[in-house]
Amino acid sequence: MPEPDAPRRLDDPALLPFAPLIHSAWSDGLLTASELRALRAHADAQTWLPQTARAMLDRWLDPDAPPSPRELAELRDRIRSVPIADEPEATASLADLGLALSRAEGGPTEGWSDPGAVASLHALEAALGLVGREAVRRLLDIEHDTGGGPARAPWFDAAALRAYLDADHLELRDRVLGLMGRPPLRIPSQIPLDEYRERVLDAVRLLADHGYGSLGYPAEWGGGGDPTAPIAVFETLAYGDLSVVVKFGVQFGLFGGSVLQLGTEHHHRTYLERIARLELPGCYAMTETGHGSNVRDLETTATYDPETDELVIHTPRERAGKDWIGNAARHGRIATVFARLVVADTDHGVHAVLVPLRDEAGKTLPGVRIEDRGPKEGLNGVDNGRIWFDRVRTPRTNLLDRFGSIDARGRYSSPIPSPSRRFFTMLGTLVMGRISIAAASVSAAKTGLTIAVRRTSHRRQFGPEGGGEVPLLDYPLVQRALLPRLATTLGLHFAVRALARLHATRTPADNAEVEVLAAGLKAYASRHCVETLQACREACGGEGYDARNRFAELKADTDVFTTFEGANLVLLQMVAKGLLSRFRHQMGDLALWTMVRYLAERAGTTLAELNPVVTRRTDEEHLCDPAFHHAAFTYREERLLRSAARRLKSRIDDGMDSHRAVSECQDHLVQLARAHVERVVLDHFRDGILHAPTPGLSEALGVQASLYALSRMEASRAWYLECGYIEPSKARAIRRQVNLLCAESRTCARLLVDAFGIPDEVLGAPIAT
Amino acid sequence: MPEPDAPRRLDDPALLPFAPLIHSAWSDGLLTASELRALRAHADAQTWLPQTARAMLDRWLDPDAPPSPRELAELRDRIRSVPIADEPEATASLADLGLALSRAEGGPTEGWSDPGAVASLHALEAALGLVGREAVRRLLDIEHDTGGGPARAPWFDAAALRAYLDADHLELRDRVLGLMGRPPLRIPSQIPLDEYRERVLDAVRLLADHGYGSLGYPAEWGGGGDPTAPIAVFETLAYGDLSVVVKFGVQFGLFGGSVLQLGTEHHHRTYLERIARLELPGCYAMTETGHGSNVRDLETTATYDPETDELVIHTPRERAGKDWIGNAARHGRIATVFARLVVADTDHGVHAVLVPLRDEAGKTLPGVRIEDRGPKEGLNGVDNGRIWFDRVRTPRTNLLDRFGSIDARGRYSSPIPSPSRRFFTMLGTLVMGRISIAAASVSAAKTGLTIAVRRTSHRRQFGPEGGGEVPLLDYPLVQRALLPRLATTLGLHFAVRALARLHATRTPADNAEVEVLAAGLKAYASRHCVETLQACREACGGEGYDARNRFAELKADTDVFTTFEGANLVLLQMVAKGLLSRFRHQMGDLALWTMVRYLAERAGTTLAELNPVVTRRTDEEHLCDPAFHHAAFTYREERLLRSAARRLKSRIDDGMDSHRAVSECQDHLVQLARAHVERVVLDHFRDGILHAPTPGLSEALGVQASLYALSRMEASRAWYLECGYIEPSKARAIRRQVNLLCAESRTCARLLVDAFGIPDEVLGAPIAT
Repeated sequence: MPEPDAPRRLDDPALLPFAPLIHSAWSDGLLTASELRALRAHADAQTWLPQTARAMLDRWLDPDAPPSPRELAELRDRIRSVPIADEPEATASLADLGLALSRAEGGPTEGWSDPGAVASLHALEAALGLVGREAVRRLLDIEHDTGGGPARAPWFDAAALRAYLDADHLELRDRVLGLMGRPPLRIPSQIPLDEYRERVLDAVRLLADHGYGSLGYPAEWGGGGDPTAPIAVFETLAYGDLSVVVKFGVQFGLFGGSVLQLGTEHHHRTYLERIARLELPGCYAMTETGHGSNVRDLETTATYDPETDELVIHTPRERAGKDWIGNAARHGRIATVFARLVVADTDHGVHAVLVPLRDEAGKTLPGVRIEDRGPKEGLNGVDNGRIWFDRVRTPRTNLLDRFGSIDARGRYSSPIPSPSRRFFTMLGTLVMGRISIAAASVSAAKTGLTIAVRRTSHRRQFGPEGGGEVPLLDYPLVQRALLPRLATTLGLHFAVRALARLHATRTPADNAEVEVLAAGLKAYASRHCVETLQACREACGGEGYDARNRFAELKADTDVFTTFEGANLVLLQMVAKGLLSRFRHQMGDLALWTMVRYLAERAGTTLAELNPVVTRRTDEEHLCDPAFHHAAFTYREERLLRSAARRLKSRIDDGMDSHRAVSECQDHLVQLARAHVERVVLDHFRDGILHAPTPGLSEALGVQASLYALSRMEASRAWYLECGYIEPSKARAIRRQVNLLCAESRTCARLLVDAFGIPDEVLGAPIAT
Repeated sequence: MPEPDAPRRLDDPALLPFAPLIHSAWSDGLLTASELRALRAHADAQTWLPQTARAMLDRWLDPDAPPSPRELAELRDRIRSVPIADEPEATASLADLGLALSRAEGGPTEGWSDPGAVASLHALEAALGLVGREAVRRLLDIEHDTGGGPARAPWFDAAALRAYLDADHLELRDRVLGLMGRPPLRIPSQIPLDEYRERVLDAVRLLADHGYGSLGYPAEWGGGGDPTAPIAVFETLAYGDLSVVVKFGVQFGLFGGSVLQLGTEHHHRTYLERIARLELPGCYAMTETGHGSNVRDLETTATYDPETDELVIHTPRERAGKDWIGNAARHGRIATVFARLVVADTDHGVHAVLVPLRDEAGKTLPGVRIEDRGPKEGLNGVDNGRIWFDRVRTPRTNLLDRFGSIDARGRYSSPIPSPSRRFFTMLGTLVMGRISIAAASVSAAKTGLTIAVRRTSHRRQFGPEGGGEVPLLDYPLVQRALLPRLATTLGLHFAVRALARLHATRTPADNAEVEVLAAGLKAYASRHCVETLQACREACGGEGYDARNRFAELKADTDVFTTFEGANLVLLQMVAKGLLSRFRHQMGDLALWTMVRYLAERAGTTLAELNPVVTRRTDEEHLCDPAFHHAAFTYREERLLRSAARRLKSRIDDGMDSHRAVSECQDHLVQLARAHVERVVLDHFRDGILHAPTPGLSEALGVQASLYALSRMEASRAWYLECGYIEPSKARAIRRQVNLLCAESRTCARLLVDAFGIPDEVLGAPIAT
């Protein structure tokens, strides 16, 4: 079609309301054939438009002859003539602006008095995926006039936010932080392995001397009796040297925790105080070389010998050696050893036995062989080792016998009849460890973000011709790399704290849910931590590579968080199975398959039809509405739950064995687990906002919750698009809204990281202080 | 609607062709309302179906009353009665299977003789997103019968593939590999900084002694005269200690290359042979503390003093010190210093000057101050440092004067009049460095994948009840983590080799394209390397954390690849600008904006309408068709190019300054750059397949190219969905096809990593050897 000679005009007054839409559609990105079709279809539907007007409009919407820059500029100038100072409502959307333009030029024509016509214009705007206010701002150049910054910059007091975030055990946290800025807790980096290990031991000893090792133990054994306090200490320590944190966790959490949780009064009385004072450094010896994740199949044996009333601990083959055991290579004097308990030729499954490793002088005891694991990627202040036992004898009473005991006559009994359930009960010790790793992951992410946000706020590179250089954090992709992760870190903060509280106050009925949450948050937070630190390092460029700026050790130390205390992939499948079995506290396949069938059969009936208005709404009010976020996250989790159930069911119905069925659906199960964690984090984030002490803090946190929610939806937008929960225009609107929220968060990013409350001397990084 | 009492039947013969579709739709995942609607709409369209048959079908498609497991099992058993041994074509799709079923039970009814009815049944199958063969296999349990492995396992000879992959300089590579397994090139890990640096120097000296430093220098100065040889050496060395690689690159590539590229005969004669023999260790001193990425604004000055015919090198302020300079802290005796050349008070922009740093005894010369950068996250065998100059005098002839010279009478002249263009010409030295980093990234990824694939092939965890444990690489998510990355690594292999060849044979007309490709592949490959090594480390679990298994150093060493020789974010924007200016070799905004206008104005007219058949086709033949991949990658690049142009144009037309306009479109530009690189990689991958010496190798590489293409499309599926290039059913089909290709690749993954040809003694990792 040849380009007509006459310039395009828009001088039929009935067309003026279309002007801002036409301009924005051509200016903002590629106008697709489908968008053009939407515009024309809408115009066609306005049957009251005079034929001449319709023809005029067609020329503006001809894909083969887009308007020239001059024509668009003239149209823009005309739109900018609207006296928006007198008509603030005109800036709410492009449709409103168009109607204001027609008012400014003599009032809309009669056809527009029909509310249907106006509503249809708004619908068209939404269908085109133009976020109203942003498009208006751009068209009117409002953003430019205000110097580039977004209009709204929520103000709040960083100290007040810090006091709120750390309200739980604030004073305890501050005391720990006070110790951390100086030796022995401040440990120089890049020191030789042996010296590093000794310094870390000194640091843990200082913490023990201050009583921090026993805060969670019962008061009757000299402890503080508060199960949330150790996590508060642990996550505070995690701003500093992570070897100290892990050694602290091994001694007081895993080892001490196993004596507390799996032992009985005799063990508590004999050991807990000495453990808390670090007089008896110990190990938690579960993992074997051949069995890292699949610990139900451990091979080490503890065989009862009625002749001597002893247990004989034995490693049946080289690959059954205990592996990666913290405290083993150097300092451990005793270990909680997980071994198959054999009494009178009957294997009662895995139990825990206290087995001395070294004498007081540190010499390895007869029958015990220990090998140093040597240098690792990180956490080199922790002395991991391997341990083999050659028929090592230990008294019967060293069996930690809360869940399974041998009486003086050599008879085995247990309060839990099912060996499988008994074993999973004993694994409960790991729950506290997983919560702690989740907490430490959040702390390490906070450290990285504090360094990177401060650095990129003052480091400048490039800039406009003739102008000054621009801070890195002003660049959209630097914001994109850091700020959604900052928001997610805040969400995880609330979720992990809530889980710690639930764990402390749990009833037996809560156990399964706590286990699922601990597994899920550990996996999610540790992955988040690894990705966040990488993004932070890169945002800091070469300086991020300087060992003094912390990322070298932070990255190397936290990398294993994705692996230890349960490999993330295994934990996420555990989460999915927990969801599928609706937290029935029984890990057998039977309960799982029963629930899978139930869920699968409900699948066809209960997921509501999608509301086309909601799948298309793209206005800011809707996009930042917590109810929308909640609905979207819940929908995703529910739908994934049911479709996973159906996939599993079809395989089981076909006679496939359960291992293979689960394996084939692995991707689905892991996706379900992540969706669950993201929904839980959102709920706790909102809960944290609800309880914020001032409206300013609520508002600031609200922006972050929106950024978290929308950036997570953006990351999953392919899924949402595939199932029709959102339409393409909405996906684009979400992306733009994330950009806007990033720009908004940029103005308070420094306040937010200040609110993490990491003192400069703990932060350490020269580029951040 | 109450559940009817009568069991569902399918005894109208006209309905039998629907049976497999009905069964699969209910069995495989959640049957959505829209899928049910599609099924019913299709059924309604078959007007020839008798009313009773229609009612019967309706009952099978009632979302409020899904069929019971027993009903589905009966249906399945009936379908399985098809004598597929006699009718192999029956397994091609669910529709074919259904027609075969109706044949088996007496022949299709008359209505099905209409080819339209059959075509429509096939279309329905595609619309439901059921990948024909996979769904048939599952329904008929064929997969189960064959032991879970995919039917086709392309066989090829790993040695033959290795010979093909490394055909370029095969003998040279093998000689280098021969040196690498033993000292001085094999360097123990975890040694003190000072010792490490000396050992790395020794290693580089050995390479120089063997003549590897000068392979690329002209023969007249004692070199090998082959510009591709240094890259072959560099990428081979990159299987080993990366500090050696980087030190090698600093000395012979950056420093020697700057003398070769920026100097003239006097410099070549005086220095090249001594550089090649490592008699004169030198530095490439460009970056300053204040200017890492924005090197056009460097502040160091080289002021010509006509009195003494000398250049005075000066650091005007602390932050203008040269920073991160390799070889500076310890071994460098001279440096190519980038400084603003000032002659008779005129600033001619940044030029390069040779400035001695230390005397033969290693003592720093007067006026030169050097500070050790100290420990870094990785590459600690390279002695990076900072350098400040306090009015250091150097002869005029030390100016590397190919692109700008001062004559004996103190007059400046240059063959390139534009200072901006002159500067970018001088930056050309970096191109070789970027190609080398891309090559080293591919090598490091190969190392990591070799270790991880071997480890996960023999490490077993979990398994079916009563059965043996299963190798980790049999788990779909482990395959997902490793195998698409293995495929991408192969694609990058071909692309980087092709770029090295193009660089070696380039004409001036190729320069801009080579620069864009070098920037793009460096950024893409270094990011790929970081992500691949992280995935490999995690797949190896705790053993991956053991420093002996290489990941500790591999990850730490390569992390900075994303930052040095051009930060990735900056490079990707450079790529996008190059694409927008269609490789016009002029970096000024003017040419860019001219092209942006041109592209933006073409945007509405040239992108073809999408073909609805292609957006929906989900059969394996189509999904693995190279023409489909090429079309999809090209469409993405083109569309992003034009939409980026439009976004930029609307801002420029509004009078926004160019820096801000580019900054606001950063996300778009980076996405465009990545899409470009992915398309280039695909093209070179296909080219590599085309030239493979045997059909077996072509077939094996073809599977990998499909896996690369589809996994990249899957990663971008939100974009494809948003613009309507694919429909949701196709997105799901792509995901399933990636799963199938992963399963297929699992059977040859060990052969593929063997074909990388990394000898065990170079690989080093105990878990892999």
